[in-house]
Parts: sequence; structure tokens; C-alpha cells
Amino acid sequence: MNEEAVFRMVPIGTIHRLDQGVRLEILEPYRPAMQQLEHFSHVMVLWWADRHDNEQSRSILQTEPPYAQGRVTGVFATRAEYRPNPIAMTTCKIRNVDQEQGYVDIAEIDALDGTPIVDLKAYFPVCDRVRDASIPEWLSDWPDWMPDEGLGL
Amino acid sequence: MNEEAVFRMVPIGTIHRLDQGVRLEILEPYRPAMQQLEHFSHVMVLWWADRHDNEQSRSILQTEPPYAQGRVTGVFATRAEYRPNPIAMTTCKIRNVDQEQGYVDIAEIDALDGTPIVDLKAYFPVCDRVRDASIPEWLSDWPDWMPDEGLGL
Repeated sequence: MNEEAVFRMVPIGTIHRLDQGVRLEILEPYRPAMQQLEHFSHVMVLWWADRHDNEQSRSILQTEPPYAQGRVTGVFATRAEYRPNPIAMTTCKIRNVDQEQGYVDIAEIDALDGTPIVDLKAYFPVCDRVRDASIPEWLSDWPDWMPDEGLGL
Repeated sequence: MNEEAVFRMVPIGTIHRLDQGVRLEILEPYRPAMQQLEHFSHVMVLWWADRHDNEQSRSILQTEPPYAQGRVTGVFATRAEYRPNPIAMTTCKIRNVDQEQGYVDIAEIDALDGTPIVDLKAYFPVCDRVRDASIPEWLSDWPDWMPDEGLGL
């Protein structure tokens, strides 16, 4: 592998926070890729944490998460937005899909209004639903499941 | 949002397929980000599908997946590697973490030897374990859970 390689991603849409819920607006050229998405209950939204797309944020490798004070944690062991590649991923509940208009309405997401979207992936239990998942002891009071409406800000 | 924007990602490591299992080799500068990862049972590996990083693959928006012949499906409703941004994500079972050597040994992954890694995210059930996930009727015979060893090639 060439360690100097750079991979290029383009936005395929934008996150818009509404009064109720959140709308993913997909750019017109990419709307055919939404076909059949309405048959899934959930979608994983890959978004670009653009406010952390700078040298300073991208060089943060360890943190003391608010939920684990005093424990130095590598960013790969967190879901922090600041990381070497500021790509974030949120599993979201689908409320409605309108391919013609380019809308995917979801219940919630932990991203700011205007955030660029770089990919959508339908949630397949066979890929991502882990029966026996364990987390560190100091997180043991966290829920075993995603909240019904997903995670917000 | 600027539709002409381009986001830049760099490799943080490489996937190496071994005789038994798979080793994620993390580049030296990023190894501090692995701290505490050994306390999680699973990790989501974001990898760059480099053989599909070309104009032809990136312009494929719909497909007829082998598991759903005759059904035209948008790539956002699949986990296909060919998509506008060829970023793939696989949930993997962690077997061992060696931060000093930069190794994360996992049971399986559906990526070829030599594939670049762009991010690791610890698997948090509160983020990604969906209690009531539904998929299209024509996939209803698929498992409700990820296989214990994960998905391979």
C-alpha cells in the first residue's frame, strides 16, 4: 500500500434538521441509488464531520470522553467526530423515502444542520446486528440497544 | 453546501489476510488511537474499496444483486462496494489488539488482502444494535444476526 495515497470523496447530499425529525436531501444525480431503500426500516448514514476537517482535529488520537473521565481512550475506541479521517456513521430510523424529490426522512441523527452526506447503506441485520457484543466494564450501564428513535444531538 | 467539494481521506492501515483470520495492520503514527480498543468485542472497519475507485464503478447507481435477481436495487439499498464513494464498512469480531505492534486481529472480513483501512470505530450497541430492524420481504430468509465470526469473502 502506498502510505501517501489520498482517497477522494464527494458529497452525495446534505443533512437538514427540521422542526420535527431530520431530512436527508440527496443530490439529483444520485437519486437512482435510493431505489428500494424504502423497504428497509433503518439506514446507516455516513457523513463528513466538516467542522473537524482540519489539521488540528485530524491529529487528535486520544481523548478523555465525557462518559469515561480519567480514562485516556484512543479515538478508534470512540465514536468521536475528530479522528484522522473525520468520517462519522450513524444508524438512523427511516420514516419516509421519496426518490423523486431526493428525500430520506429519518427520526434523528447526531449531526448538525448542513452536514454533508457521503454515503447511505441500508441496515442489514446479518451485517451489523451483533448478538453478543461486549463493551468496557466502565460503560456497562449503557443500553444494550439503539434507542427506538436513534441517537440525536 | 458546495456540491463541488471533495473530501480527502488517508489510509490509516492495511488489511492482511492470514492463514487463519485476518490482521489489521495500523500505521505507526495512528497506533495511539487504538488505546482501549481491546475492551470491545467488535469493531467496525471502514475500508476503501480501491479496485472500485474508478469512474466506471463510481457511476454505478443501480444493480441486480445476486440475492435478489430481477429486482433493480439502488446501491444505497445494498452493501455493494461499487458506489459513488467506494467506502465499505464491515462489523468484525476482535480476537486480539496489540497497540505497540499496530495489530488488530479479527475473525473475518469481506475485503481482499492489501485493502486500505480508513477508520476503525468500536462497536457500541447503543449506536448500532437495532432491536426492531426490518428488511425487504424478499430478504426475509436472511439471518437476524451477524454470524458469530462475522462476514468473510
